Amino acid sequence: MSWTTEACQQSDMVERDFLLEVDDHKVPGVYWQPVTGAQRLVLLGHGGTTHKKVEYIAQVATMLGQRGIAALAIDGPGHGARVAERWEDDPTRFPAMWHSEGGTQTVIRDWAAALDFIEAEQGQRPTGWWGLSMGTMMGLPVTASDPRITVALLGLMGTWGPNSDDLRRLAEKVTCPVRFLVQWDDEVVPRDDCFELFGLLGTRKKTMHVNPGAHAEVPAFEIAGSVAYLDRHLGA
Amino acid sequence: MSWTTEACQQSDMVERDFLLEVDDHKVPGVYWQPVTGAQRLVLLGHGGTTHKKVEYIAQVATMLGQRGIAALAIDGPGHGARVAERWEDDPTRFPAMWHSEGGTQTVIRDWAAALDFIEAEQGQRPTGWWGLSMGTMMGLPVTASDPRITVALLGLMGTWGPNSDDLRRLAEKVTCPVRFLVQWDDEVVPRDDCFELFGLLGTRKKTMHVNPGAHAEVPAFEIAGSVAYLDRHLGA
Repeated sequence: MSWTTEACQQSDMVERDFLLEVDDHKVPGVYWQPVTGAQRLVLLGHGGTTHKKVEYIAQVATMLGQRGIAALAIDGPGHGARVAERWEDDPTRFPAMWHSEGGTQTVIRDWAAALDFIEAEQGQRPTGWWGLSMGTMMGLPVTASDPRITVALLGLMGTWGPNSDDLRRLAEKVTCPVRFLVQWDDEVVPRDDCFELFGLLGTRKKTMHVNPGAHAEVPAFEIAGSVAYLDRHLGA
Repeated sequence: MSWTTEACQQSDMVERDFLLEVDDHKVPGVYWQPVTGAQRLVLLGHGGTTHKKVEYIAQVATMLGQRGIAALAIDGPGHGARVAERWEDDPTRFPAMWHSEGGTQTVIRDWAAALDFIEAEQGQRPTGWWGLSMGTMMGLPVTASDPRITVALLGLMGTWGPNSDDLRRLAEKVTCPVRFLVQWDDEVVPRDDCFELFGLLGTRKKTMHVNPGAHAEVPAFEIAGSVAYLDRHLGA
């Protein structure tokens, strides 16, 4: 478990990579922190066929940083720097890649290890989750099982896909406030499956925001609103 | 067409009743304006079995006034001061009361007359709609047919109820930005009917917000957010 790069300052944010050993595999991660420091933290789960520093994840990290919130991301199972092979042009391989290192249970351990690492380095802080699509395939189980996460931005996912049984089973254990995003014309995850997963979430403090457009067409105002939502719920 | 009361100032708002004659019937209304004046206006449509000054309508008027926005409400067909008989304890009479003066087409004419009246008095201003449940049974047709309305807060209604055919037919003509509220556990209007109506709205600038709870349990933060939404979309 160690940092792998020097801290690299980009405008008002410091970015630093790290590498964890969890059980028998390696988990590459990145940590972003405003230069002025941060008393709060958000875990960022990227979508399928992308990676921990994909453009929209880096943008959310920047938007969080502007509100004085640090961010942490790791590559999901079979994604990014965890695998040498580039398979992302063939989305039919996604389920196999999701399961390549053990699926949902491995994901829960990986994220717990990443949060352990950063808390050992930076101390315990109010912590939230932000993740859509595969970022919810990871984030719903993580939020359900790690009481350190006290608010979550989820969505673009339903009772669907390679860990749908886990999502159905764990949804009721999500008891913190949740905002859940759905795209009305989602061509990847059917909206009715998304609605069903929203209904299964155990928390009473949940709101679903539904906008027109395809899976990857979440409006910019909704992304900005999601960051403001986490900011409000993580306290000052 | 005339004012029926002197202007009555309550805290920072001036409230004044008026009475219109539209075709062969009378339409009682109320106008609220911040004491400092208002360059923008929102039409407030009340819910079934209530009236133009029901508590939550007056509260929304106050919240709008705090943002420098005037508000106008009229009693809906068969409701409030339009009828001497008090029938509201028997909701099964609601469809008959809705149709008692001509239904959707009469509603459209009533609201157009109310907006004509207030524009003659106060001048033309950027104008929005706020109305849930029967406030959407009125507001969707009004927004679809009156180009003066440039943003609308709708919801708690679906392809359902005494004017469902009109709602289905007119939804595609709603082309301004819309925020649409749904209660997941709505015991009056089934959520699937609400989802269907949201899908039929012609505008691409539409967002649906869904919260747990019964028909009348819209969270306070969602009401506050609805006022902020209209404020943003009506311009400064």
